[in-house]
Amino acid sequence: MSNSKLAKEFAAIVGAKNVLHTESDLHTYSYDSAVLTPSVPALVVKPCTTEEIGPVTRLCNDLGLPVTVRGAGTNLSGGTIPHPGGVVLLTNGLNKILEINEEDLYAVVEPGVVTAQFANEVAKRNLFYPPDPGSQAVSTLAGNVAENAGGLRGLKYGVTKDYVMGIDFYDVNGDLIKSGSRTVKCVTGYNLTGLMIASEGTLGIFSNIILKLVPPPKASKAMMAVFDDIDKASEAVAGIIASHIVPCTLELLDNAVIRYVEDYTKAGLPTDAQGILLIEVDGHPAEVAEDAEKIVKLCKKIGATYVQAAETAAERESLWTARRNALPALARARPTTVLEDATVPRSQIPAMIRGVNNIAKKHNLSIGTFGHAGDGNLHPTILCDRRDKKEFARVEEAIDEIFDVALSLKGTLSGEHGIGIAKSKWMEKETSRATLDYSLNMKKAIDPKGILNPGKIIGG
Amino acid sequence: MSNSKLAKEFAAIVGAKNVLHTESDLHTYSYDSAVLTPSVPALVVKPCTTEEIGPVTRLCNDLGLPVTVRGAGTNLSGGTIPHPGGVVLLTNGLNKILEINEEDLYAVVEPGVVTAQFANEVAKRNLFYPPDPGSQAVSTLAGNVAENAGGLRGLKYGVTKDYVMGIDFYDVNGDLIKSGSRTVKCVTGYNLTGLMIASEGTLGIFSNIILKLVPPPKASKAMMAVFDDIDKASEAVAGIIASHIVPCTLELLDNAVIRYVEDYTKAGLPTDAQGILLIEVDGHPAEVAEDAEKIVKLCKKIGATYVQAAETAAERESLWTARRNALPALARARPTTVLEDATVPRSQIPAMIRGVNNIAKKHNLSIGTFGHAGDGNLHPTILCDRRDKKEFARVEEAIDEIFDVALSLKGTLSGEHGIGIAKSKWMEKETSRATLDYSLNMKKAIDPKGILNPGKIIGG
Repeated sequence: MSNSKLAKEFAAIVGAKNVLHTESDLHTYSYDSAVLTPSVPALVVKPCTTEEIGPVTRLCNDLGLPVTVRGAGTNLSGGTIPHPGGVVLLTNGLNKILEINEEDLYAVVEPGVVTAQFANEVAKRNLFYPPDPGSQAVSTLAGNVAENAGGLRGLKYGVTKDYVMGIDFYDVNGDLIKSGSRTVKCVTGYNLTGLMIASEGTLGIFSNIILKLVPPPKASKAMMAVFDDIDKASEAVAGIIASHIVPCTLELLDNAVIRYVEDYTKAGLPTDAQGILLIEVDGHPAEVAEDAEKIVKLCKKIGATYVQAAETAAERESLWTARRNALPALARARPTTVLEDATVPRSQIPAMIRGVNNIAKKHNLSIGTFGHAGDGNLHPTILCDRRDKKEFARVEEAIDEIFDVALSLKGTLSGEHGIGIAKSKWMEKETSRATLDYSLNMKKAIDPKGILNPGKIIGG
Repeated sequence: MSNSKLAKEFAAIVGAKNVLHTESDLHTYSYDSAVLTPSVPALVVKPCTTEEIGPVTRLCNDLGLPVTVRGAGTNLSGGTIPHPGGVVLLTNGLNKILEINEEDLYAVVEPGVVTAQFANEVAKRNLFYPPDPGSQAVSTLAGNVAENAGGLRGLKYGVTKDYVMGIDFYDVNGDLIKSGSRTVKCVTGYNLTGLMIASEGTLGIFSNIILKLVPPPKASKAMMAVFDDIDKASEAVAGIIASHIVPCTLELLDNAVIRYVEDYTKAGLPTDAQGILLIEVDGHPAEVAEDAEKIVKLCKKIGATYVQAAETAAERESLWTARRNALPALARARPTTVLEDATVPRSQIPAMIRGVNNIAKKHNLSIGTFGHAGDGNLHPTILCDRRDKKEFARVEEAIDEIFDVALSLKGTLSGEHGIGIAKSKWMEKETSRATLDYSLNMKKAIDPKGILNPGKIIGG
């Protein structure tokens, strides 16, 4: 079927103005935030009600057309790169917060609600939605769920999956599947909500999502500790956990990142420091004060060369500026920024950082490492130029070796960015052939024609 | 194949002494803790290593023999009642705690570890495993995961699923499937760990499980508040949540339960009270003291006729005795105790209790209601005699109506007991035909011969 004929079929469901098919539209939706080759879809379809998702999906299935759901396209593993000639189903028109229930501490949202906007609406009611992926200013909640997005608060508050109580989604026949509940406890039927989380649009297309809310912390305090040795910084992380303090944020910047950030911001960071920890504790004011004092003492005892606790909101803000600027500072150094998220049990961070530094040296690459030290989720970031084929071949070898190190330390390929098409080739190494077969079998039964975001996660 | 020939086949894998097939053995494993008709298996097979689970499962599949995994048989929805002529796979020999990692806050356990023994081992290391289902003294961890068991701490600490980081399990071919990780963040592949939770042995047979641990609370305080009106008790629950206090436990006993408990324990409970709340807060000592004071004030303001805060460990113990005795006190009143767990958003508790009381009156039945008011998970408990067919027909009608009320209040069939065979017939009412078809399709692909605990959850 020609693209214009196809467009008419979809226009009958969502209206002609919600079917995009000019060349520039199609190129706009041919890539996401991962460093991968773009792929041009045949059409972009933008439902204006969640009910329209059903017939759109059914039509794709009837025509055997691959369909890739896209929220804001902030995906870092290629999960929103469409199949060539397929359909992009755009959810940004489905952005209503349907309910914020203050008595029962949940909210019901349409898939395309922007994460930060939702968190702000919730905060206005003096409630708290903790997941805070780096892309929260533009990312959508359904995208967060489809990727099980993480963020800085993973250690204390968990990740997106810890806040999803229920998901309604459409199957390939366009029928609505209901899973989960507005109740904290629900064991009615298979945990399809759990199965949908991190399924990257390959098992169903999300409609409304029920999210858990919590009361906000009453107080918080941010600190910075500077170390002349990365192992000492890791020792401080271990010491904090061993003291049974669970910071809401516990971030690490290595020397390379510190230098790039200072070069970018001129904020006065010590460029000879080998590691900086940025730490925030929250909770009851008495607990926050005690924990902050303990952390400052502990960092000094371990040999921090400088420790600062923010006394004002402005001081707190300035501490977090360093962390927020890590990725932009790295990204401006070279044309291509490959942001990895191999993750290890937190006690293995020193070994992981040593491993990454050895790999950088071996392949003559610039790799800066920052990330969520509290939950072992580091972001080794490779600075390169994708157009330089020789260099990029070394980058690909380095990524291979980074995964090998993470797995040898009982870690995982991806902490929060997803598998998408970027990492599916490594899946068998971490799991097993039988695990992939189990997954492929299940996928085949749910999506016999293979139209739901084909090629993602498990290939297939 | 004759049972004795079958026994030999399994004995070749697990050893003759681990295949039970005397009549008394078979009857022992023909029922669980649900009020349902027993069903006698052909054999009981008891692996002594998790590696033996693979060949046992494969043999069942080769022979087309239904296999039901059983831990302690504390299941309340018939999930561990075997298929007639099938195999019971007993996990109580697989009870090793393989690792408690204090640095990285996780543990790795074999499936048959007893919940309370695990919690105690963890506590010895000054760590905390919060899920506390009522059967924890004997229930197994794999059973808890297979049912997504809840307990008293759901409101603040969540349920079993919130503590499962990874599950290795065997598929019908006897191959080991690996899911999840030792890291807090992991998005590598489908969330098969999530899918396994609450799957009641129908999608795979669990081997080792990775569980999350947390630091224990530093302090706690228990309180009791007595009300002459159940709506006031519910108002107190709402008031506590609205004050942004999240108690670790927030339990309710209605008048019927109070009377049965007092009759059993002679502890001096006020038998004319219409509702008792048992509340415990935990956390930092300053927060605990403040929260306890606020709760006492709030309960008095709402009109509690009596409020007591436990000042000593003995006083705390005596408060909790009433709650612990609720089920035994009800169970001794009549020959049959039907313990339901329909769950509603917590603000709907007064409507739910009114509904249950109307149903009791209409069908001339004794129903006592107690349970986890904080998370809306109530246990209407019907006292009856199953041998009295007329009465039991009324009980079945009452259960139907209890579910109708829960669903009309946006609740769910089961908060923590599972669907099993007891509630599968109501599944479509809560979800949809398409939801069941999606589930059946998936199940069929994973288990083509239908050997994994057939008939549970979705029938089929």
